Amino acid sequence: MSYQPTPDDKFSFGLWTVGWQGRDPFGDATRAAIDPAESVRRLADLGAYGVTFHDDDLIPFGSSDAEREAHIKRFREALDATGLIVPMATTNLFTHPVFKDGGFTSNDRDVRRYALRKTIRNIDLAAELGARTYVAWGGREGAESGAAKDVRVALDRLKEAFDVLGEYVTEKGYDLRFALEPKPNEPRGDILLPTVGHALAFIERLERPELYGVNPEVGHEQMAGLNFAHGIAQALWAGKLFHIDLNGQSGIKYDQDLRFGAGDLRSAFWLVDLLETAGYEGPRHFDFKPPRTEDYDGVWESAAGCMRNYLLLKERAAAFRADPEVQEALRASRLDELARPTLGEGETLAGLLADRSAFESFDAEAAAQRGMAFERLDQLAMDHLLGARG
Amino acid sequence: MSYQPTPDDKFSFGLWTVGWQGRDPFGDATRAAIDPAESVRRLADLGAYGVTFHDDDLIPFGSSDAEREAHIKRFREALDATGLIVPMATTNLFTHPVFKDGGFTSNDRDVRRYALRKTIRNIDLAAELGARTYVAWGGREGAESGAAKDVRVALDRLKEAFDVLGEYVTEKGYDLRFALEPKPNEPRGDILLPTVGHALAFIERLERPELYGVNPEVGHEQMAGLNFAHGIAQALWAGKLFHIDLNGQSGIKYDQDLRFGAGDLRSAFWLVDLLETAGYEGPRHFDFKPPRTEDYDGVWESAAGCMRNYLLLKERAAAFRADPEVQEALRASRLDELARPTLGEGETLAGLLADRSAFESFDAEAAAQRGMAFERLDQLAMDHLLGARG
Amino acid sequence: MSYQPTPDDKFSFGLWTVGWQGRDPFGDATRAAIDPAESVRRLADLGAYGVTFHDDDLIPFGSSDAEREAHIKRFREALDATGLIVPMATTNLFTHPVFKDGGFTSNDRDVRRYALRKTIRNIDLAAELGARTYVAWGGREGAESGAAKDVRVALDRLKEAFDVLGEYVTEKGYDLRFALEPKPNEPRGDILLPTVGHALAFIERLERPELYGVNPEVGHEQMAGLNFAHGIAQALWAGKLFHIDLNGQSGIKYDQDLRFGAGDLRSAFWLVDLLETAGYEGPRHFDFKPPRTEDYDGVWESAAGCMRNYLLLKERAAAFRADPEVQEALRASRLDELARPTLGEGETLAGLLADRSAFESFDAEAAAQRGMAFERLDQLAMDHLLGARG
Amino acid sequence: MSYQPTPDDKFSFGLWTVGWQGRDPFGDATRAAIDPAESVRRLADLGAYGVTFHDDDLIPFGSSDAEREAHIKRFREALDATGLIVPMATTNLFTHPVFKDGGFTSNDRDVRRYALRKTIRNIDLAAELGARTYVAWGGREGAESGAAKDVRVALDRLKEAFDVLGEYVTEKGYDLRFALEPKPNEPRGDILLPTVGHALAFIERLERPELYGVNPEVGHEQMAGLNFAHGIAQALWAGKLFHIDLNGQSGIKYDQDLRFGAGDLRSAFWLVDLLETAGYEGPRHFDFKPPRTEDYDGVWESAAGCMRNYLLLKERAAAFRADPEVQEALRASRLDELARPTLGEGETLAGLLADRSAFESFDAEAAAQRGMAFERLDQLAMDHLLGARG
Repeated sequence: MSYQPTPDDKFSFGLWTVGWQGRDPFGDATRAAIDPAESVRRLADLGAYGVTFHDDDLIPFGSSDAEREAHIKRFREALDATGLIVPMATTNLFTHPVFKDGGFTSNDRDVRRYALRKTIRNIDLAAELGARTYVAWGGREGAESGAAKDVRVALDRLKEAFDVLGEYVTEKGYDLRFALEPKPNEPRGDILLPTVGHALAFIERLERPELYGVNPEVGHEQMAGLNFAHGIAQALWAGKLFHIDLNGQSGIKYDQDLRFGAGDLRSAFWLVDLLETAGYEGPRHFDFKPPRTEDYDGVWESAAGCMRNYLLLKERAAAFRADPEVQEALRASRLDELARPTLGEGETLAGLLADRSAFESFDAEAAAQRGMAFERLDQLAMDHLLGARG
Repeated sequence: MSYQPTPDDKFSFGLWTVGWQGRDPFGDATRAAIDPAESVRRLADLGAYGVTFHDDDLIPFGSSDAEREAHIKRFREALDATGLIVPMATTNLFTHPVFKDGGFTSNDRDVRRYALRKTIRNIDLAAELGARTYVAWGGREGAESGAAKDVRVALDRLKEAFDVLGEYVTEKGYDLRFALEPKPNEPRGDILLPTVGHALAFIERLERPELYGVNPEVGHEQMAGLNFAHGIAQALWAGKLFHIDLNGQSGIKYDQDLRFGAGDLRSAFWLVDLLETAGYEGPRHFDFKPPRTEDYDGVWESAAGCMRNYLLLKERAAAFRADPEVQEALRASRLDELARPTLGEGETLAGLLADRSAFESFDAEAAAQRGMAFERLDQLAMDHLLGARG
Repeated sequence: MSYQPTPDDKFSFGLWTVGWQGRDPFGDATRAAIDPAESVRRLADLGAYGVTFHDDDLIPFGSSDAEREAHIKRFREALDATGLIVPMATTNLFTHPVFKDGGFTSNDRDVRRYALRKTIRNIDLAAELGARTYVAWGGREGAESGAAKDVRVALDRLKEAFDVLGEYVTEKGYDLRFALEPKPNEPRGDILLPTVGHALAFIERLERPELYGVNPEVGHEQMAGLNFAHGIAQALWAGKLFHIDLNGQSGIKYDQDLRFGAGDLRSAFWLVDLLETAGYEGPRHFDFKPPRTEDYDGVWESAAGCMRNYLLLKERAAAFRADPEVQEALRASRLDELARPTLGEGETLAGLLADRSAFESFDAEAAAQRGMAFERLDQLAMDHLLGARG
Repeated sequence: MSYQPTPDDKFSFGLWTVGWQGRDPFGDATRAAIDPAESVRRLADLGAYGVTFHDDDLIPFGSSDAEREAHIKRFREALDATGLIVPMATTNLFTHPVFKDGGFTSNDRDVRRYALRKTIRNIDLAAELGARTYVAWGGREGAESGAAKDVRVALDRLKEAFDVLGEYVTEKGYDLRFALEPKPNEPRGDILLPTVGHALAFIERLERPELYGVNPEVGHEQMAGLNFAHGIAQALWAGKLFHIDLNGQSGIKYDQDLRFGAGDLRSAFWLVDLLETAGYEGPRHFDFKPPRTEDYDGVWESAAGCMRNYLLLKERAAAFRADPEVQEALRASRLDELARPTLGEGETLAGLLADRSAFESFDAEAAAQRGMAFERLDQLAMDHLLGARG
C-alpha cells in the first residue's frame, strides 16, 4: 500500500496550522508569516483535498472592504489553480482583545452582538466558497473565577447565539451545518461545553437541533483524560459527528496540537479504525501546530506526516479487521453477543420477568468464571499496529 | 448561625459510605462491618434526614428470601424508630465478579439479563420504601482496551436497558425517576458516559427522556479536571439535576471520596452557592469514604464534618450574595448585562443585521479597553469564604 | 489582625507579573506596556518590599549599551525613591526565538554559549543591585519528541552551565546563590528537571552544590498533580529552599499563574503554615499573571489580593497551631510519636533485633484497631481556615 | 528476529503480578489463588529468567515458622526445577491494616519498629535466595490531609529506617542494594518521594548513599504526567537505575498496571531505546496486573505479551538507530553538537568571557532562523516503530 495521500483521502488543513508562526505564552514568533495562497499550493502538492480558515486567517482583522476582496480573490485563485476545496470555515472570536471575556457569552452585550455579526459575515463567505460545515470553537466562552460567569445565564446566551445563526442559514438557504468544538480549558480557566458530551447535550436544547453537530479535536478530549475514540463513538451514535479535528497530545497538559500520530499512538489507531468502519464521510481535518522549533521545511514535513500516519494506521486497522484470527478472537470475547439485543426478538418486559433462567436459576458464580479473553485480542491489535503479523 | 444539621437540610448518606470497611486496591479492611440499622441510628443522631443503599448493602449478595425479608424488616424498624427516610436507592452491578465486564453492557448477554432483573428487583424495594430517585452508576460499563468493547453497540445495549427500566416503572406506576451517575474511569480504564455532559446527551436518545436525569458526583467530574459547578449548572439548565453526590477530591487521580469540603474548597463554595440559589430541592447526598486510617469514631467525625462544611459554606455563600459591595461588584463585572438577551426585546435577526453600531461602526479597540473587574469580585468571594469581611 | 502588608512581610513581585500584557497562545495583548519604574512605585504603595526581574523585563532585548544604562538608572531611581529592594533576579532564556530549543541545553552550541554570556551579564547587574538569589528557570530546556534530545547528554550540558556560573560568582566573590525553578511542561512538551525532586537531585551532582537550591512555584508542582507543601517540606528538609514563587493553579492543565489564594485554597493554607513554622526567611515572592480580562485597576487589585490572602492564611494557620484543642488532636493523632526516633535513645541495631516486642510478640491485629483520628484533626483545620472557631 | 524470550533477555515477574486475583476498590476477586510454585513453572515456560516476591506473596501473613519453611522449600524446589532465579525481593508494608498510616513513617512508633523487623526478616530470605536488589515501595507512607503528617519529620523517620537497613546489610555482608520505588499517590492521597526525582534527592541524604538507587515504574511516573524515559535518563545519569518496573498506563488516573506496551506506546519505544543503548544490565521486570476480566489463560497471554512487546520494541529501536537516514537526521538536528561541551577543550571561563563571537557579535536573529528538523526525525522514529520503513 502506498502512503501517498490523494484527494480521495479527504485530507484538509486549516490555514492557521501550517501558518502558525510559533508564538506561545513564553515566546515570540519563530517563523515569518506565510501567504495563504502559498499554503494552498503547498498543501495541494502534498496531497490534501481541502483547506479551511478563520475569517482573520484570510483577511487580517481590520482590513478595509477593498483589502478584503483582494485577499479573497487571491485565495480563490489559488483554490482554482490547485483544485483544493473549502469544506469548512470558522470564526476567530478569540484573538482580538475585545473577546477577552468571550464572544457569544461575553458579559459585554455589545461584544456579543459584534461577535454574531462577525460570524454572520464569515458565514456568507463560507457559503460562497462552498463550505458545508461551519465550525464554532468558543475558546473564550468561560471563566477563571466563580462569580465572573453565571453559567446557566451564559448557556442562555450561547443558545440564543446559535439559534440566531441557525435562523440565518435557514433564511439564506445555505447548505451549511454547524459543528461545535468542545474544549475543557485554555485559554480560559474553564470553558463552556468542555467535552463532546456537553456539546451534544447542549445541541438538544437548540431550536433547530438538526443543524448542529460536533467537531471533536483529539487533544481537547485528551486534555480531560477522556478516551477520544469513545467520545467519537458516542457522537456517531447520536448522528452528530459533522467534522473532526485530528492532531496529537501527550496527556493532560496544555494544548499541544502535535501532528497526527504523535502523542497517544494506540488511541490514534482505534480512532482511525472507528472512522473507517463507521461510515464517517466527512473531511479528515488536521488541526495541529508544527512545533516552533521548526522552519518551513519542518512545517511541510509535519503536515505530510499527519497524512502519512493516517494512511499507515488505516492500513493497519484494515489488516486487523480482515485477519481471521482476529475475527475468531472477537467472537471469543463475545463481541457478537454484545451486538445481540438483551431481550430476545419479540420478547417483552413480561417475558424477561418470567424467565427464571435470567435470575432465579442464574448461576452467577459459574458465569463469573468465564474469561473475557481481552488480553489476547488486544495483543493481536498491537501486533497489527506494529506490523508484526505474518 | 448554627452549623448543627436538621432534617430540613435534607442531608442523606449512603449505607456504603459510613459502612465502608477500608478495603482498597492495596490493603485489607481496617474496620469491622457495621449493622445497617446501627448506621441509620447514628446518622439520625447526627442530623441526617435520609439514608440510601445499594441492594447488596442491605441484603448481602446470595441471601435467601427469608434472610432478605429479615434484613429489610430490621432496616424498616430502624427507619421507623429514627424517622429517617429513603430518598434514593441503587443497584450494585460492580462488586460481584460476574459483572467484571459490566452489567447492562457486558459482552455476556446472560449477564445483561441478570443485571436487568437484579435492578428491577431492587426498584421494587426502592418503591416500597418510598424512594423517589433511582441512581444508576455503571462503573463496570467500559473497557481497558480498544477492541474489547464496540462503544456504539454498547450504547445500544445501554439504551435498551434504560428503556426497559423506564417501561417497568411506568407500567408499575412508580413515582420514581432515574439519575445516571457519570464517571470517567476506575474501576474500568474508560467508562461509558464519562461526564455529566455525556450522560445528559445520552438521555436525549432514550424513549422516555423525561424519566431520566443525572446524579453528578463532585470527585467524578474532578477526576476529568472539569469544573464541577459548571457541570451542575449545565445539568440544572437542562432541567436534569435529579440528585447529587457530594464529596471531596484532590485533583486528577484515583477516586478519593473525601468528606465534603476536603479537596477543592473554593469549588465547594461555588457549588453550594449554586445549589442554594438555583432552586435545587433534592437531597444533599454525601457519597464519601471515611479514610481507612479512621476507626468508627473517625467515621462519625467525618460524616458530621460533611454536613458541617455544607452549612458553613451555605452561610458564607449567602453572606456573599447579600453584601451590597458584592452586588455592586457584580454589576461592575456586567453580570446584569449577561442576563439581558443579546437581541433587544422584539428585535429580529433583520434588526441585528441592520444595526450598524453592532458591526460597521463598532469600535473594537475601545471596547477592548474595558476591564472586567473579575479579580476584585473574586477577592470579595475569597473574603466571604474565609469569613474575613467586617 | 490587619491584613495590610508591610515590608516586614517580605512580599516581592516580578516586574513581569504586574507588567504582563495578556498575550496568550490564542490572543493578543489586552493591556498596554507599563513602565517598570511605575510598577515599582505601585508595588511599594501596596506594601511590597521587593521587586525582581528578568534582564529583558528591564532592558528590552537588543538595547544598546546607552539604552541599557538609561533603563537601569531609571529603575534605580524608582528603587531609591520607594525603598524597594531587589532580592532576586533572573535571565530570560525563553522569549527570543533563538532559544526555541533551549538556552543551556540547546542542541546549538553557539546558542548555549550565548545563553551563558547573557546570564553572566545579568548576574553582574543582579549583584550590583544587591540581589542575593539568582533564579534559573529553564523553561525551554526540553523536547516534544523522543530523539530530539538525548537527556543524559543534555544533563551534562546543564551541569556544565551551572558549574560555569558557580565558578563565575565564586571568582567574583558575589554573595549570590542560585535557585533552580522546576516545571514539568509548557512551553516544551517535557522540560528537564520537571519537579522539585528532580532539581534537588540534580544539584547534588554539581561541583559546588552548596551554591544551589530550588525556587519552587506553586502552580508548577500542581501541574504534575503533586502536593506543593510536601515538595516544599522536602526542599526545606534538604536545606535547599532558597526562594519560592507563590501563585494559584486549578489542577492539572496549562500554567495559570492565578493570584495567590486562588486555585487550591486548602493547599495554600498548609503551605503558609509550613513556611511560617519552618523558619523560612526568604522573600514571599509572587509569580502570577493578572488575568487578561483585567485592566490596570484589576492588576493592582490582583497584586493586593496576593498579599492579603497570604496574611489571612498566616493568621488562620497561627490560630490553628495555637489552639489547645488542636494540640490535643495532634497528640491524639500521634504526631508527637512521629517526632520520636524509631530506635530508642542509644539503641543499636542489635537492640532492635533483640526486642521481641517489636516483632515476635507484636500484636499486629490489636495495633491495627487504633484509629488515627485524622478526620477530626482535619476538620479542626477546616474550621480555622474558615474562621469558624470560637 | 524472533520475539520468543529467552533467559538472556533477563525478563522477570513478580509473584503478585500473575498471582493478582483481581480484587479492586469496587470488586471482589475474579480469579482463584494460584500456587507460587505453579507461577514459577509457567513463567519459566514462557521464557522468563527471574521471579520476585513480597514476603507475604510467598509466606502468607501470620504463618507459623513451620509453615514458613514449607512455603520457602516448595518455592526453592520450583526454582531449582526451572532454573529461574530471584533477582529481587521486597516487603509488603501495605496490605495489613496495621500499616494503614505507613510502615517506616507511621505515626505509631511500634508499627515503625515492626515494619523494620518485618523488612529485615525478608532481607535475610532475599539474600539466601540470591537476590541482589531489595525494592522498597512505601505506598502507605503519606497522608490524605495536611496536619496528619509532618513531612519533614516523616522524612527523618524514613532516613532513619533506610540507614538502619543499610547498616544491617553492611554488617551482614549481603551483596544487596536497595531500590526505592516512587509513586505520587494511591493508595494514599499523597505519598512521600512521589517521583524518581524526589527519591534520587532523598538518597543523597542517607548515610551510605551508594547502597541506594531507584526502581522506577512506568505507570507511577505517568500518573504524575511525567515523561518516563526522561526520568529514567536522569536516574541513569545519576548512576542510580538499580532496577525497573515495566508496565502500561493510560494517562493520569488510578494505577492501571497494564501489560507492558499497552498505554503509551511511543513512550515505551523510547524507553526500550534508552535501556538498550545506555548499558542498563539489570532485570527487565514486569510489574503489571492482568485485567480482572481475564481467566488464567488471559493471565498467561498477558504475561507473554509483556515480553513480546519488549522484544518488538527492542527490534524497532535497534533498526531506528542503525538506519543511515536516521543518523543523518540526528546530525541535521545537531545531536552531535549537543554532545560537544559548551566550553571548548581547555577553554576557561575567562576564555568564554573573552569570546566576542559568543555574545557581542553573536547574531541572534540569524541563529533563530535555523530549523531544528525535529519533525522529520520524529517521523522517522514513527516509521521505524510501525515497521513501515523499506
